[in-house]
Amino acid sequence: MDRIFYPNSVVVFGVSEKSDNLAANIIANLKAFNYSGDIHAVGLRAGQVHGVPILTSVDALPDSIDLAVILTPAATVSNLMDGCGKKGIRRAVIESGGFSEFSEEGQELERRVCEAAERWDIRFVGPNCISVVNMENGLCLPFVPFERRAFKRGPVSVLAQSGGISITYLLMLSEAGLGVNKVVSMGNKANMDEVDYLSFLLQDAGTEVIILYLESIEEGRRLIELAATSPKPIIVHKTNVSRASAEVAFSHTGALANDDEIVSVALRQAGIARAASFDDAVRLAQGLALPPVQGRNLIVLSRTGGHAVVAADAAEVNNFRLMPISEEVLDDVRSLLRADVIALTNPLDLGAIFDFRLYARIVEKCLNVLNPDAVLVAHTYSSGPEADSSHELAYQLGELARKLYKPVAFCPFAPRSEIETLQREMGYPIFTEIEEAVRVLAASRERSAHPARLFPLPPPPARRPHEVEKLLVRDGVLTTDTALGLCAAYGISVAEWAVVDSVEGALVAAASMEYPVVLKVLSTDVTHKSDVGGVALNVGGPEKLREEFPALLARMEVRAPGAEVGEVLVQRMLPGGREVILGGKRDPSFGPVVMFGSGGVYAEVFEDVAFRLAPLTRESASEMIAEVRGSRMLRGVRGEQPVDVESIVEVLLALSRLLVECPEVTEIDVNPLLVFEEGAMAVDARAVIRCRARSGPETGI
Amino acid sequence: MDRIFYPNSVVVFGVSEKSDNLAANIIANLKAFNYSGDIHAVGLRAGQVHGVPILTSVDALPDSIDLAVILTPAATVSNLMDGCGKKGIRRAVIESGGFSEFSEEGQELERRVCEAAERWDIRFVGPNCISVVNMENGLCLPFVPFERRAFKRGPVSVLAQSGGISITYLLMLSEAGLGVNKVVSMGNKANMDEVDYLSFLLQDAGTEVIILYLESIEEGRRLIELAATSPKPIIVHKTNVSRASAEVAFSHTGALANDDEIVSVALRQAGIARAASFDDAVRLAQGLALPPVQGRNLIVLSRTGGHAVVAADAAEVNNFRLMPISEEVLDDVRSLLRADVIALTNPLDLGAIFDFRLYARIVEKCLNVLNPDAVLVAHTYSSGPEADSSHELAYQLGELARKLYKPVAFCPFAPRSEIETLQREMGYPIFTEIEEAVRVLAASRERSAHPARLFPLPPPPARRPHEVEKLLVRDGVLTTDTALGLCAAYGISVAEWAVVDSVEGALVAAASMEYPVVLKVLSTDVTHKSDVGGVALNVGGPEKLREEFPALLARMEVRAPGAEVGEVLVQRMLPGGREVILGGKRDPSFGPVVMFGSGGVYAEVFEDVAFRLAPLTRESASEMIAEVRGSRMLRGVRGEQPVDVESIVEVLLALSRLLVECPEVTEIDVNPLLVFEEGAMAVDARAVIRCRARSGPETGI
Repeated sequence: MDRIFYPNSVVVFGVSEKSDNLAANIIANLKAFNYSGDIHAVGLRAGQVHGVPILTSVDALPDSIDLAVILTPAATVSNLMDGCGKKGIRRAVIESGGFSEFSEEGQELERRVCEAAERWDIRFVGPNCISVVNMENGLCLPFVPFERRAFKRGPVSVLAQSGGISITYLLMLSEAGLGVNKVVSMGNKANMDEVDYLSFLLQDAGTEVIILYLESIEEGRRLIELAATSPKPIIVHKTNVSRASAEVAFSHTGALANDDEIVSVALRQAGIARAASFDDAVRLAQGLALPPVQGRNLIVLSRTGGHAVVAADAAEVNNFRLMPISEEVLDDVRSLLRADVIALTNPLDLGAIFDFRLYARIVEKCLNVLNPDAVLVAHTYSSGPEADSSHELAYQLGELARKLYKPVAFCPFAPRSEIETLQREMGYPIFTEIEEAVRVLAASRERSAHPARLFPLPPPPARRPHEVEKLLVRDGVLTTDTALGLCAAYGISVAEWAVVDSVEGALVAAASMEYPVVLKVLSTDVTHKSDVGGVALNVGGPEKLREEFPALLARMEVRAPGAEVGEVLVQRMLPGGREVILGGKRDPSFGPVVMFGSGGVYAEVFEDVAFRLAPLTRESASEMIAEVRGSRMLRGVRGEQPVDVESIVEVLLALSRLLVECPEVTEIDVNPLLVFEEGAMAVDARAVIRCRARSGPETGI
Repeated sequence: MDRIFYPNSVVVFGVSEKSDNLAANIIANLKAFNYSGDIHAVGLRAGQVHGVPILTSVDALPDSIDLAVILTPAATVSNLMDGCGKKGIRRAVIESGGFSEFSEEGQELERRVCEAAERWDIRFVGPNCISVVNMENGLCLPFVPFERRAFKRGPVSVLAQSGGISITYLLMLSEAGLGVNKVVSMGNKANMDEVDYLSFLLQDAGTEVIILYLESIEEGRRLIELAATSPKPIIVHKTNVSRASAEVAFSHTGALANDDEIVSVALRQAGIARAASFDDAVRLAQGLALPPVQGRNLIVLSRTGGHAVVAADAAEVNNFRLMPISEEVLDDVRSLLRADVIALTNPLDLGAIFDFRLYARIVEKCLNVLNPDAVLVAHTYSSGPEADSSHELAYQLGELARKLYKPVAFCPFAPRSEIETLQREMGYPIFTEIEEAVRVLAASRERSAHPARLFPLPPPPARRPHEVEKLLVRDGVLTTDTALGLCAAYGISVAEWAVVDSVEGALVAAASMEYPVVLKVLSTDVTHKSDVGGVALNVGGPEKLREEFPALLARMEVRAPGAEVGEVLVQRMLPGGREVILGGKRDPSFGPVVMFGSGGVYAEVFEDVAFRLAPLTRESASEMIAEVRGSRMLRGVRGEQPVDVESIVEVLLALSRLLVECPEVTEIDVNPLLVFEEGAMAVDARAVIRCRARSGPETGI
């Protein structure tokens, strides 16, 4: 990948002297950005653009060119790749469109390009991409002409699924004063995908913060694993939020887990900040480009009461603590004041101090004496004489932040030309909204607090319990006893049960348990057995059982005609206990996901559920339970006894192991799990199996 | 108020030739903004600033000056007001600080200023205010120097509680290209408050959209009543979001209603858009300054697939419908295309059309043929030759929107200098974020859909049921029977009850009802009677009653010693029914508020409650019920019978009447209300009374 972003020489294909030639714009950009390597051009007709001669054949090129940039009709590209290959060129950026994104013929053309690349061992970006930009060496390859001064070099690299949006980010990051390091739009990803590019950016020295713009995530699990161990902050702007899923889910877990929610959960688990918009992504990048926020203590300086109020609100919303300012610091502030017309609290209102350079001194004192986790300076000034002193303040704050390695968010309120001057000239992010500055400081704090252990790498492949092998033998819905057996195999306590095929068998089984019992029909043809009368609750004694058993089968014949009902499950009916629901499903991109929710109607009516990618850690299992509002009821409300929440953690961990070790399980519900003052027991379970030809745990896990 | 914003002549007090004189900045601003009237200056020493001679006495001024602007030490202001009064000046802007906001002496000085004003019938802004600005006539009174070119004249007026923030809005609205009409910072509001200013702006011809920045709302009810009938869009940016209320609420309603939630509900009811930040307020003003959005049909044009995806997401989130584009329009688009490389759907991807002026033609066609409710144009271009054609497009879109009176949101992605040119030159709002553009279009749609009837003016004072008079006689907590009686007086069905003072009385009462019954102690000293064992549920027959009655009283002696327990309430225990909770409280600023919530633990655990200011309409009562998630259970889940939701509407309306007509009731809970397949019955009620000296319904209602 190094040779793509740091080539010693570049050749652009498709160049002509015509005024509307797009490839010529690439030459123009390389010149405008002072690209440090050699530039060559190849086209149909000899000539010259921007001082670069146009050669008419690959053979005329010198040897050892690092990178080919191709912008010729789709049909010509595979031949060109062969030409490059012969010439020893091993990297390419294919900007041409008209491939798989366009038509079936294009798909064929793309396949041929891939074959040529394989023949010559060429790695390439695209096809159908706009941008590869490296601000370090002036490699600017978009075919849209840019002015150098519109772009600022900085610490953020962007990886975008869309060309237009890569340009939008290039502009926005530059204008926000943050600056860009590298940009790539991935196009059709025929040869390299987001995981390849992200791997490169993670070890790229010039990249400190990464923004990913994605419209789909195919390799979610790999992306997450890569990000979870990244020392560099990653921001994902994911659009194309899934519309109401067409597929009807079998389980509660499936129905409750919408795809976008899984994306959010996965990103959060990997410590990735999710951006809601372009501006949001840029602001998050600003916050994450500062030294990290390590805790809740915030100090706010402002020049007007109004901005102080806004900052205090934002601090509360974002769970910051406006730490008390000690007398030592206040004495220092007082000594700087001419009049005593100031509220010496936090936020510190400095409206009465007109020499702005003193503010830096106050910030330094605060940082040294109070050691806050972050400082916000909401500064107000107008153009004219106030501007010079404000510029000096801005510069000093930047120096302080660097020297003391503390996040100082500078948020000036001034005419736009002033803000732009600061954004252009200061080497650190300038904020323009107090609320947003505080919010991204909180995002930085969350990143610092994010324990990588919340998303551990998968454990070494375990030998799964041998009972499992005989349970997961055919595709489809498991019968209740098999599903319960699967749970039991993973150590989940299950309410005592027996499978019988006659009323006599049922009587024997019930006698060995304890009345009351429950009867449930076993059938893979019935999805919701209670809906068709396939359950008899609260069977209190043998007489009742003698009545209910045949009645159950009779109901099935009427309400589920044709369903194969062989056996009946007799289960002890447990007294008391609080109901919760647990489950899991296998996301096509992110792999196994565990769910926890309030029991009964709560989960559905209030959508009161939490999700996590498996494998779960003990901490993340506890976190899931805490996230579910209804779990407050488990801890005892209105004087009720609390139940054994720790036992739910154990069941969640067991379910996580089950999902990781049994890739055949695509959906599973444990519903309800009854939680008692001590222990918890699964009462019912459902699962869907798809065995396929699998030789071990699923890809990526 | 006209004379404040449109004075024919202004005199500024406190002017001197010294370089740091703040009052001189006011003269400078009036000059810089080409104030159309006469300017006079008064100071301690004769001289001249910015071409205006400084007079040393009020007497030296000509007669018939309209407005005095005062920036002299606080102690001098009341005398100056007398001087103004003698000279016939009847309006003033007092910018000086050091009054009630500063100290007790300042409070006294403020009182004297008010007296002087009353003597001479002078109305004034402030004291302690920065801004009165009218961009129509160049009246620019802040004492901070401004450059005229930083400000743009436009349709938005701003009313701010903070001076610094009024300046922030002045700059932001100008820079967003929207522009400002009038600005006032209210300072200490000694003579005029937000309701006065708002009343003026509502009838001011130059003001089309109003932004209010408020840190507190004292006259909430008046504000809301004023806004509810306003034809002009109003945006409120309310900060100083209340911290955890110190006051411990007596009722569930009180505990569940946090002050900020009441603010949100009240603003929503009045059709006011609530802004979350400065930027949000400016964006909302942009959206509301466009012709109104009247429905859900949206058409999106974009130049890149990425921006189209972002727009489609935003449309879905904001409940817009991407309406189908008819063949007639598509044919027109096709005829403009050179290549057929475009997806002809909505969003319409125009990336293949490079003559941007054609876009206006497509928009016009869409508006004429399809009659959408809004159009969003996400345009992408770079500087250079593309810019000219884009400027023309921007101009044409503005003309189209005006001509056809339809909202066309133009959202260009281009270098900042380009955006700034558009914002400066186009006479309509330019958006910079797709998501935000769509969101404010939705805000406009909601405003259009807002039926003023959701917040009707209070009904003419009604004669309240005469039984009420004897129930509301003393302050404090009502006993359960009185609270139930109050409900019954307003037509709410209450489960049959009787008050007894002996076990014999209880037996007689119970016999006339039907067993089982409930016993509840009656005591104004006990806040939560079940917590101290003051309730006996499910008393199944006379023997049980004989046991429970004395046991109840005995428990009270142990668990609530000293509480005066005179009588006991015997109530029929109703079988079945679904529990809900209703309530009301009196907000000090907004007046009576009605609450509805899920019953049982739902309301608390899930904070599943809805609020509305009273008086309720039938529609808003229904809306409250629909807002509460748990009410889905009332409509029948899992095959249960639905209950009589309409009967809850009746009870809510009754409660609304009760709160409006009985200002003595400060808090009330009806908890639970049992809702049956037909009808609903209150089972328990609690209320707090504060009689005070009131002769009728509360102020403002």
